[in-house]
Amino acid sequence: MARIKIGVIGAGSVAWSSKLIHDLLHMPTLYGSKVYLMDINEERLRLLKGFAERYMSEIGGNYEFITTTDRLEAIRDADIVINTAMYGGHQYYEEMRRISEKHGYYRGVNSTEWNMVSDYHTIWGYYQWKLAMDIAGETEEYAPNAWLIQLANPVFELTTLIARETKARVIGLCHGHMGYREIAHTIGLDPDKVDFEAIGFNHVIWLTRFRYNGEDAYPLIDKWIEEKAEEYWQEWRKTQVNPFDIQMSPAAVDMYRRYGLFPVGDTVRGGTWMYHWNLETKKQWFGPTGGPDSEIGWEIYLTHGEAWLEELEEALKNNSPLAPMFPKGLTGETIVPLINSLIHDEPGTYQVNVLNMGAIEGLPDNIAVEIPATVDGKGVKRPQGLRLPGRIMKLVLWPRMLRAEMAIEGFLEGGFQVLVDWLMLDPRTKSEKQAEQAWQEILSIPGNEEMKKHYR
Amino acid sequence: MARIKIGVIGAGSVAWSSKLIHDLLHMPTLYGSKVYLMDINEERLRLLKGFAERYMSEIGGNYEFITTTDRLEAIRDADIVINTAMYGGHQYYEEMRRISEKHGYYRGVNSTEWNMVSDYHTIWGYYQWKLAMDIAGETEEYAPNAWLIQLANPVFELTTLIARETKARVIGLCHGHMGYREIAHTIGLDPDKVDFEAIGFNHVIWLTRFRYNGEDAYPLIDKWIEEKAEEYWQEWRKTQVNPFDIQMSPAAVDMYRRYGLFPVGDTVRGGTWMYHWNLETKKQWFGPTGGPDSEIGWEIYLTHGEAWLEELEEALKNNSPLAPMFPKGLTGETIVPLINSLIHDEPGTYQVNVLNMGAIEGLPDNIAVEIPATVDGKGVKRPQGLRLPGRIMKLVLWPRMLRAEMAIEGFLEGGFQVLVDWLMLDPRTKSEKQAEQAWQEILSIPGNEEMKKHYR
Repeated sequence: MARIKIGVIGAGSVAWSSKLIHDLLHMPTLYGSKVYLMDINEERLRLLKGFAERYMSEIGGNYEFITTTDRLEAIRDADIVINTAMYGGHQYYEEMRRISEKHGYYRGVNSTEWNMVSDYHTIWGYYQWKLAMDIAGETEEYAPNAWLIQLANPVFELTTLIARETKARVIGLCHGHMGYREIAHTIGLDPDKVDFEAIGFNHVIWLTRFRYNGEDAYPLIDKWIEEKAEEYWQEWRKTQVNPFDIQMSPAAVDMYRRYGLFPVGDTVRGGTWMYHWNLETKKQWFGPTGGPDSEIGWEIYLTHGEAWLEELEEALKNNSPLAPMFPKGLTGETIVPLINSLIHDEPGTYQVNVLNMGAIEGLPDNIAVEIPATVDGKGVKRPQGLRLPGRIMKLVLWPRMLRAEMAIEGFLEGGFQVLVDWLMLDPRTKSEKQAEQAWQEILSIPGNEEMKKHYR
Repeated sequence: MARIKIGVIGAGSVAWSSKLIHDLLHMPTLYGSKVYLMDINEERLRLLKGFAERYMSEIGGNYEFITTTDRLEAIRDADIVINTAMYGGHQYYEEMRRISEKHGYYRGVNSTEWNMVSDYHTIWGYYQWKLAMDIAGETEEYAPNAWLIQLANPVFELTTLIARETKARVIGLCHGHMGYREIAHTIGLDPDKVDFEAIGFNHVIWLTRFRYNGEDAYPLIDKWIEEKAEEYWQEWRKTQVNPFDIQMSPAAVDMYRRYGLFPVGDTVRGGTWMYHWNLETKKQWFGPTGGPDSEIGWEIYLTHGEAWLEELEEALKNNSPLAPMFPKGLTGETIVPLINSLIHDEPGTYQVNVLNMGAIEGLPDNIAVEIPATVDGKGVKRPQGLRLPGRIMKLVLWPRMLRAEMAIEGFLEGGFQVLVDWLMLDPRTKSEKQAEQAWQEILSIPGNEEMKKHYR
């Protein structure tokens, strides 16, 4: 089995990195490899290193974990580069959101139809994109044979951009498609026995196949909606504590009715402004928390992230066993099995984001689609000619693609006009003065000096 | 010289048909041909027939002019089918506009970014599109070797639709590109000596080449803007009587500044809502009439149409000479020279609308672009690899293309959702209830029964 070098950029996201380490420890075929955990936050790295060593000694495994604040040290000659880095702290984005709202843009100028996800930073993600492009550029130069796994959002835009503009062999990854399991579970099916397919763009994927025991199981969804949904929602409205508990929400069912296929995972967080006008609307569609992308749900999410960190710190300090914090066996995240397939030329099917190149009919070749594909040592082998209904193509994917193209244009070419026109397609805009002033103030916050220059 | 059959559908548009007849009379290579003038308005046909015969006897020529209310009679075995038919009277669309405005959609739900033209009927043009598709279908069946010249708007959408969905050999035609002559004239150049190119989509074309005496003449536009524009506008604001006199308006110059190329012809009527919020805004950008697509300008246009009809009727009644009503020689409309090129395999360069197929880089193959192309007996030979700046591609053509795709999807597949989502991208929308109610009332007016069924 090959001993490889894995460079993890942005490893300081402890909740995510600890799961990665867990899965690596459960993948003996990669034993002997070196894992470079890179971040600019040294305290997090120390914590992570402590966790990795302790957990390895607890459950067994054989890796060399190296922590570093030097990005190039992690990337140079790596076989796998993982980008999971988010530029800036959450507060940076919350400040741009606050200013947006002052100017009439509830939840921020970055939120648009089919991208309401609060940290899927597109038009205002200048530094995040720059960071991703720097990582891709360094991978291209210092690890030309590496696979670059793009986990940092916005996966849709960044996979597209990196694949278009660099030679890095990029694969975008997200776990949102696992939402099919919640669908199955809720309507009373065993998720492990479901045969599913969900395709589209990252965070905008639609259930194109849903089979159970060899038969189409869509009728079972319809039956659940007709007979059980109301009762389910009544209970859910009383008990929803996790704002992400929306896979079977009224929003999801309404989207299914309107667009013809069931939305999967983060797709449910999207939709046009009709689901998102304000907190009241969000509560109606996404439950009492308003879903993850309301002011309530997002606050819960941000707080929860810190809670997990504290839990881990506590466990390390007390020398209590770590295994109970994780599921038995692999977590279900596909990154470690995917790495195994790439490195050992062991074909497997994974949900990946790659340039379309004929995979989904009716979309340009050079836009990143999310599809199930065979991955082996040669990389991603796309299926060809997958299809989505015209309604989803033209009412969902095209508007979403337009936003991606506008943001890419803005990132590559700069200029104020793209920011203005971004908001001229937004039902929250009442005048171009409003749009201009919102952007002027956003560009003027401390830290945005370079971004302001780019967009002047 | 070939004697051919030309079928003109919607010939009752007298202002346009009289110019067609004028040009035919000035094209001896087509003498001996039969011209079928088809309309459902018999009175107009009588008037037109009277005009054609009188004018031919006045200035010479040799055609057989046949009027008919039977569309198939005009199309069957034709060599050229011209569709210039507009479904319904202007009042039909004015009623939909009136209802739209009642619900907060100034100038109607059909007006969108980069299509503010008041009779460029896209999303509410159900019957107009159906008529065009019927004509294309009959051409396909009864005149399979004919060229179908699509003059009726929306040329962009209908050329795309017909080329995708039928085998009719369609060429979309518009005279908006002639606006380059106004640019030249205003800045003091002889329009006849200008070498120009303007490309994009119909009504959304941008000056990609503007040369004079072998040199780039864009600097002369810049100089005019810097030194003369203010003075020109001062005078223009006092004297504008023709609402279409906007080629050198502040709107045009502002678009040039924002997007990097000068907008040509009807393109100036477009833009985002920032040029069109209300009459006051329109006046600021398009002069005291508010441009052709304000309530003032549009009223002038509709009235003017009737005025020309009366003038012609008067001239016929009085037996006064008709030639003074027309320019000397060809009008400058390209349709008759184009027919000559197609029929006699005489290569010529024309501004046409055809499926892209590589003509403009970065656009799908199956969308109709407006480009200059060589036309001969084999049809349109597209140039390849024309380019537009990213700013225009992503901020103008992509949003415009999205609207076309949404309208095409709506026409082909129906359903209420496309109408709702059409308005969910509109800054005039404040709630989905507003959008739904506007459409419900529009679909409920007398005459819209079939359309309502289609969109239910």
